[in-house]
Amino acid sequence: MSRVYNFGAGPATMPLEVLEEARENLVDFHGEGLSIMEASHRSKMYDEVHTQALSLIRELYEVPDDYDILLLQGGASTQFAMVPMNLSLGGKAEYADTGSWSSKAIKEAKIQNLDLSIVASSKESGYDRIPSEINFSDDADFAYITSNNTIYGTQYKTFPTTKAPLVIDASSDIFSYPLDWSKVGIIFAGAQKNAGPSGVTVVIVKKELQDRVKESVPTMLRYKTHAEKNSLYNTPPTFGIYMLSLMMKWIKNRGGIEAIAKLNEQKASILYDVIDNSNGFYRGHAQKDSRSLMNVSFNIKDKDADLEAKLVELATKNAMIGLKGHRSIGGLRASIYNAMSKEGVQALADLMKDFAAKNA
Amino acid sequence: MSRVYNFGAGPATMPLEVLEEARENLVDFHGEGLSIMEASHRSKMYDEVHTQALSLIRELYEVPDDYDILLLQGGASTQFAMVPMNLSLGGKAEYADTGSWSSKAIKEAKIQNLDLSIVASSKESGYDRIPSEINFSDDADFAYITSNNTIYGTQYKTFPTTKAPLVIDASSDIFSYPLDWSKVGIIFAGAQKNAGPSGVTVVIVKKELQDRVKESVPTMLRYKTHAEKNSLYNTPPTFGIYMLSLMMKWIKNRGGIEAIAKLNEQKASILYDVIDNSNGFYRGHAQKDSRSLMNVSFNIKDKDADLEAKLVELATKNAMIGLKGHRSIGGLRASIYNAMSKEGVQALADLMKDFAAKNA
Repeated sequence: MSRVYNFGAGPATMPLEVLEEARENLVDFHGEGLSIMEASHRSKMYDEVHTQALSLIRELYEVPDDYDILLLQGGASTQFAMVPMNLSLGGKAEYADTGSWSSKAIKEAKIQNLDLSIVASSKESGYDRIPSEINFSDDADFAYITSNNTIYGTQYKTFPTTKAPLVIDASSDIFSYPLDWSKVGIIFAGAQKNAGPSGVTVVIVKKELQDRVKESVPTMLRYKTHAEKNSLYNTPPTFGIYMLSLMMKWIKNRGGIEAIAKLNEQKASILYDVIDNSNGFYRGHAQKDSRSLMNVSFNIKDKDADLEAKLVELATKNAMIGLKGHRSIGGLRASIYNAMSKEGVQALADLMKDFAAKNA
Repeated sequence: MSRVYNFGAGPATMPLEVLEEARENLVDFHGEGLSIMEASHRSKMYDEVHTQALSLIRELYEVPDDYDILLLQGGASTQFAMVPMNLSLGGKAEYADTGSWSSKAIKEAKIQNLDLSIVASSKESGYDRIPSEINFSDDADFAYITSNNTIYGTQYKTFPTTKAPLVIDASSDIFSYPLDWSKVGIIFAGAQKNAGPSGVTVVIVKKELQDRVKESVPTMLRYKTHAEKNSLYNTPPTFGIYMLSLMMKWIKNRGGIEAIAKLNEQKASILYDVIDNSNGFYRGHAQKDSRSLMNVSFNIKDKDADLEAKLVELATKNAMIGLKGHRSIGGLRASIYNAMSKEGVQALADLMKDFAAKNA
């Protein structure tokens, strides 16, 4: 087969060896005579997968004991509702608006009738940066940020220090660098960018925050429900969790999250260097100090839509797909999550350099 | 490989050819150079899968045009909350209680503070039957039933005729027989018994019922949200939907739902005949006129736990797994959903006959 380099924003590329292991066991799971998809979620066979996924997350992400790791469904969009439903004490909720996903979270929280304020925003500058000053109130019920903004290619380099519990939507950069847990109240992410297929949502939530929830909140939307039942309150997305466990094993085999983080820095540098050394042919969307290591969003000079389309087309011909930028900002976007290889990034960089030389 | 017969209640057995097709395309999807798990949910490649899943459901289940088919996450447990959140107009909600899952749905609806009544129940007789008379009020906001009761092995042979919209939890018998749509307001099911892996919830909902929902309901919990976006409001569980599409294709290749229904009747008869002709050695949990074609729950005479355990053990030795009954009623349970072959059922029947002869 000829495998493409997939720079799509998500669901995103997965390591070939992970897919091959899944294929090898798809019909007959390690000689059990059935697929993991067919196994009861109460069986020993599935329990080992479930336990491994959870314990590898705890080990690799160094999740402290006072946090529960939950494997849920519904994606970040469901978390946008669950966060206020679980954390609001009737006081203030504070959000930083750094892009489309923050905006959606804010819109959803407003449905809950919170006393909500946006304490910082980069909307005016086209979401090209993480605001340099974000001051959350000490007495807010919670403070909310989006750690990486997929569309605009911006990323927090450090999280604000808050007294209020900090909620982090890390949908596009979970497991991509070691975390300073002293700053975290809740961190969540759909698995489909850095940690597996779509259909699994990882939520890591401090135990002490789980008791705030009111009994009027639906059972399935309470963190407590899932924490108490080890994410087996109802039938979990078993195959997705299996793939997540393989992804975590792959990260471990690559030296863990610190090693992955170094690689992610190298990968991003390769592309940003091409942009910065292109004499203005390429222009990154994000301000330099806010650049994302996960999504490199850029335009060609004068936002030349024809040239941009030509580059996307040329890349596709060269087996590099998913490079079209989000319709809201146009241009191109290379998503280079954990599973994108340095070779893939280098191939794109070479293509970009060549294209710039021919079209400058 | 030696494949087992899996009689587990769910996640449940899938057809070997479905698993083999998934395996063949797992790493390289029909020559596209990537897995379907890695494809963007906005890509042409995934769109074809998504469209096929929806159109096969509509074709095979003969879903009328005034119903939307939604592919959601969160399982029936999430539907227990979504149903009242979407359908309540502040009036009465009426439920029939035919087992654990009805009870859970009732408990969840109570959290929403409805004016709720249980109009019929078989609790007193250990949920061994579908109540013979179920009279829902004409002016209820909705009427709610569980079409098949997995644990107790009971199943509606016909649905009550109601003026109020009828909500059917068909988690364990969806797609197993043709439906009389004139009776249906909403029908829903987790896919993991008759239609694929866990992590996908099929909800088929009449269009006219979608406008009742209040704006205070979280966006993700409104049927309308997903209907308007063709189940692509957020990233769907793409791989699960792919497996669902393969399952529907398999049903089509077997002659459609009518043909599957006939086979399901034959399969169930084989086991119920063994029970009825065992001179009392086996005793079915359900009353004869309420017997499920999906789950055959039975005890050995005098509820002899030792003999029951011995039969489960013997079956396991003979590559028949998942036969232990639910802890709430003990005994054995053979789940024989769409994908369980007649050969598998016959093998179990032979084993049961032999066991009865040796232990009567």
